[in-house]
Amino acid sequence: MEINGVEIEDTFAEAFGIQVSRVLVTAATKKLAKIAATEATGYGTSVIGCPAEAGIDCYVPPEETPDGRPGYVIMICNMDKKKLDHELLERVGMCILTAATTAVFDWMEDADEKLTTGKKLKFFGDGYEKQLDIAGRTVFSIPLMSGDFLIEGELGIRSGVAGGNLFIMAENPAAGLLAAEAAVDAIKAVHGTITPFPGGIVASGSKVGSNKYKFLGASTNEKMCVTLKDEVEDSQIPADVNGVYEIVIDGLDEEAVKAAMKAGIEAAVQVPGVLRISAGNFGGNLGAYQIKLQELF
Amino acid sequence: MEINGVEIEDTFAEAFGIQVSRVLVTAATKKLAKIAATEATGYGTSVIGCPAEAGIDCYVPPEETPDGRPGYVIMICNMDKKKLDHELLERVGMCILTAATTAVFDWMEDADEKLTTGKKLKFFGDGYEKQLDIAGRTVFSIPLMSGDFLIEGELGIRSGVAGGNLFIMAENPAAGLLAAEAAVDAIKAVHGTITPFPGGIVASGSKVGSNKYKFLGASTNEKMCVTLKDEVEDSQIPADVNGVYEIVIDGLDEEAVKAAMKAGIEAAVQVPGVLRISAGNFGGNLGAYQIKLQELF
Amino acid sequence: MEINGVEIEDTFAEAFGIQVSRVLVTAATKKLAKIAATEATGYGTSVIGCPAEAGIDCYVPPEETPDGRPGYVIMICNMDKKKLDHELLERVGMCILTAATTAVFDWMEDADEKLTTGKKLKFFGDGYEKQLDIAGRTVFSIPLMSGDFLIEGELGIRSGVAGGNLFIMAENPAAGLLAAEAAVDAIKAVHGTITPFPGGIVASGSKVGSNKYKFLGASTNEKMCVTLKDEVEDSQIPADVNGVYEIVIDGLDEEAVKAAMKAGIEAAVQVPGVLRISAGNFGGNLGAYQIKLQELF
Amino acid sequence: MEINGVEIEDTFAEAFGIQVSRVLVTAATKKLAKIAATEATGYGTSVIGCPAEAGIDCYVPPEETPDGRPGYVIMICNMDKKKLDHELLERVGMCILTAATTAVFDWMEDADEKLTTGKKLKFFGDGYEKQLDIAGRTVFSIPLMSGDFLIEGELGIRSGVAGGNLFIMAENPAAGLLAAEAAVDAIKAVHGTITPFPGGIVASGSKVGSNKYKFLGASTNEKMCVTLKDEVEDSQIPADVNGVYEIVIDGLDEEAVKAAMKAGIEAAVQVPGVLRISAGNFGGNLGAYQIKLQELF
Repeated sequence: MEINGVEIEDTFAEAFGIQVSRVLVTAATKKLAKIAATEATGYGTSVIGCPAEAGIDCYVPPEETPDGRPGYVIMICNMDKKKLDHELLERVGMCILTAATTAVFDWMEDADEKLTTGKKLKFFGDGYEKQLDIAGRTVFSIPLMSGDFLIEGELGIRSGVAGGNLFIMAENPAAGLLAAEAAVDAIKAVHGTITPFPGGIVASGSKVGSNKYKFLGASTNEKMCVTLKDEVEDSQIPADVNGVYEIVIDGLDEEAVKAAMKAGIEAAVQVPGVLRISAGNFGGNLGAYQIKLQELF
Repeated sequence: MEINGVEIEDTFAEAFGIQVSRVLVTAATKKLAKIAATEATGYGTSVIGCPAEAGIDCYVPPEETPDGRPGYVIMICNMDKKKLDHELLERVGMCILTAATTAVFDWMEDADEKLTTGKKLKFFGDGYEKQLDIAGRTVFSIPLMSGDFLIEGELGIRSGVAGGNLFIMAENPAAGLLAAEAAVDAIKAVHGTITPFPGGIVASGSKVGSNKYKFLGASTNEKMCVTLKDEVEDSQIPADVNGVYEIVIDGLDEEAVKAAMKAGIEAAVQVPGVLRISAGNFGGNLGAYQIKLQELF
Repeated sequence: MEINGVEIEDTFAEAFGIQVSRVLVTAATKKLAKIAATEATGYGTSVIGCPAEAGIDCYVPPEETPDGRPGYVIMICNMDKKKLDHELLERVGMCILTAATTAVFDWMEDADEKLTTGKKLKFFGDGYEKQLDIAGRTVFSIPLMSGDFLIEGELGIRSGVAGGNLFIMAENPAAGLLAAEAAVDAIKAVHGTITPFPGGIVASGSKVGSNKYKFLGASTNEKMCVTLKDEVEDSQIPADVNGVYEIVIDGLDEEAVKAAMKAGIEAAVQVPGVLRISAGNFGGNLGAYQIKLQELF
Repeated sequence: MEINGVEIEDTFAEAFGIQVSRVLVTAATKKLAKIAATEATGYGTSVIGCPAEAGIDCYVPPEETPDGRPGYVIMICNMDKKKLDHELLERVGMCILTAATTAVFDWMEDADEKLTTGKKLKFFGDGYEKQLDIAGRTVFSIPLMSGDFLIEGELGIRSGVAGGNLFIMAENPAAGLLAAEAAVDAIKAVHGTITPFPGGIVASGSKVGSNKYKFLGASTNEKMCVTLKDEVEDSQIPADVNGVYEIVIDGLDEEAVKAAMKAGIEAAVQVPGVLRISAGNFGGNLGAYQIKLQELF
């Protein structure tokens, strides 16, 4: 199957279940909200080595937020509900409560359950905290040096989908990178999804375990390395491909991840030098979801 | 003591010893280097709740880097050397190795010792890694999907100083915030320092323990809360102060932290509406360093 | 009338008729589209001294643009239709055609008439230009060094409204500035409007002519200068006001400008330290529109 | 001649004399200074169609500026001294004086002569302006709504060099673009130079006159268009080249332009997919300067 002259491989992305939280961070200005959202979602590319997978979902203009200020929706994810509870508490408490002029609201529709992040953080007020009602939400006001921090008492979480992905294979790294940037820009418009890697883009691919170093849990996927294509016997890199980037997507549900993958592919194939689109899987035995590329269209 | 009509209080910032790493992250462009540096230093405001204190120190133009590409110097800090080793490995491995076109070099002069971050990460190459010499440095090349990632084998760390700080007290939050932004901009020019909080600015202050909730290790410093000044008996907020922001500084040594505090104060006092500059301490019994504000000038 | 404790003065903004063009600039990525849009709308604060009034209206995600790539809508305005024709041609030709990966589409609904900017620029192709149909639009493809530039043949213009405005009066400049930033962020969500001054904010106010220098067409409005409030006899600056910023708005029609003024005021009054909102007029004799502040609510 | 495997053609860039102004724009924060500098240098790619060539040269940290605040150095250029006088006055008056918290200082060493921009703008103060001495500079303070605007009375200009350039020829547009971005990043570190096109990069090339349309003064250089390489008989695009971007440089003198070209080339050749570097000239008869590429190394 081809789109705009680019081969879409007959393969699938293997994705996994994950627990997802989704909150709105507002501030006096768009820039201040972005600063807090960025700090809170940093060090959050993959739970393989980071304490969470995290990213900015979308911007919400002032007239659509509970406090009439600009805000960013962020998503913080972990396979383990207890770890997610911890991460949400610390990332909000250390990176948003401490940031200038911020407030935090639940932004999860159809939550499976609620975490009591706000109800825990309110104790930081040492008795000076107050309970408010803002647009029908139970919100706590915590006095800080610079003024009062507002946070909704309960923040919803739900079972989501992690590891939706696509590989962009191009005639050189620059074309792969520009296409990946275009894909990330397109995915930003699909609400309910994040691309948690730096700038939304993954430069490395890994396989489970290692052939040479038995103590390793994961190592580079040599069959997908462009500089090893002439060295590795069963390389999966075609002769004309010299640059490969991956986009990894976490989302609220399978539909959101599929929409993001579709938007990403449609953007990537428009960049000259992109030769084919593939996806990563583990044979289908590890993840709960198999998202076939060709069925997206 | 007054500078530009702003009272500099006769007090001191109490600072602590901390283990500091300092590495250079280069990439094909300044923007790509910034993306990786930002991801790697996120979720890093304070070791009270974050796994590290981290931030971007300075930009290094292409002609001054080992690989002739633009780069950012980042600092990652932890009180505990073992935790720092872990954080450096994971933040570099998950947030820089995975980012497009990056490389990592040791950027610590006068290191106390070296961590073998690069020598550990090279195993990810599963035998396809190579050892190179770049400008006299021992560097490992690790094949990835998108090309080869370079990282210096050993990365220096040293005993540094954490918790240098200053309080900006202003007639409203906006004046405090603008002065804090100006202070952070000035501190950026002092190499060997970071301001690890979101945008470099701290909106909240805390005290050890809690008066009301005995299970808490820390709670809001009600004496420094502007909205409680009429409610708390021994408030330290003067009647005309309605906005307080703090800058926290980590540095390679006491001299760097002092230079940063001085630059920050000189910038802050230029903003109309700033009334006084103070600093935070715990009576001098907890930290190894006492940096007196008035002796900076 | 008060909103959130801030006095809304019983006055009106006096606005003028202006000819407005509105085009969509797309590119391979959001960042590249922003670069071109920014260059093309620079040096465009006020027709008093700039060759046009210009700014970025809004972002359009890839799935909503004719070529499936991210884009920004810009507006370029001039009182004189002939001058607008010239400005549109030069700003598109010199600042967008020359920018990497861009394309230009008409984005004016309900145009009064069409300028033939694209039909003129196509001659730059020196016979190698081609006519295409993209989503029902007549578009010209012009070969460049880096590839082909696409531009729609005709670009719509209409009679719009210039000089919608509001004054933010605050207890110090920082509070006025933060409120102005918040107002600009809110106005960004009102499509069909721009705030053409630097960052959307005006630091200076002027009156027609000069009292002292007869050769001047305009000079500072001393009655509105915060540093002259004790020096000028009939100063309009209240005793507690020490910072004033203005927002100027150009829009497709009066309704758009009103919506922008309303959104801006609602955002500004949320910032502590803001004391009152006013607007600028010339007694009502010069402009075609009188927009009363209190009637916006 | 080859650098990093990339052919450096045996050709030269033909550059021209131009009148250059260079001023420092400071503000309360780095971000506010950047906003003003960007607005003032917009619509300034080439004097062929823009009223000036303009751009940001470099950042100056607070401790190195006359008023102790962060600033950006901008350059504004025109072939004609009278037009430069006009442009400097209007761009400063409309785009910097009107911007929040700014000040303007002369930043031209070795000026040929001085323009009296500040001495003219002071009349805007309508008699309320004051003359100050700041760090040995004669500066005027002009009262505005938001506070006082400072501008040095005289701003130096000198004979500089325009049109230094290099062509990056790559196997696809993305590789050319990434290399161009890297080149611009490298050139930013060469003080005394600007790259006036959008993002510093030129997507189009032109020739004098037109073969088909006799009324045109300039048209696309079809011999350098990648999409016409099979159609135009004497195309200068090699068979393997599918993307070409140009960098244009204006500088204070020939040495600065040469240093910028060298830095740009050294950065560009590091990007995989870049095949050759060339430069643009008109046979050597039009411009006063011939800068040979191979002699830069």
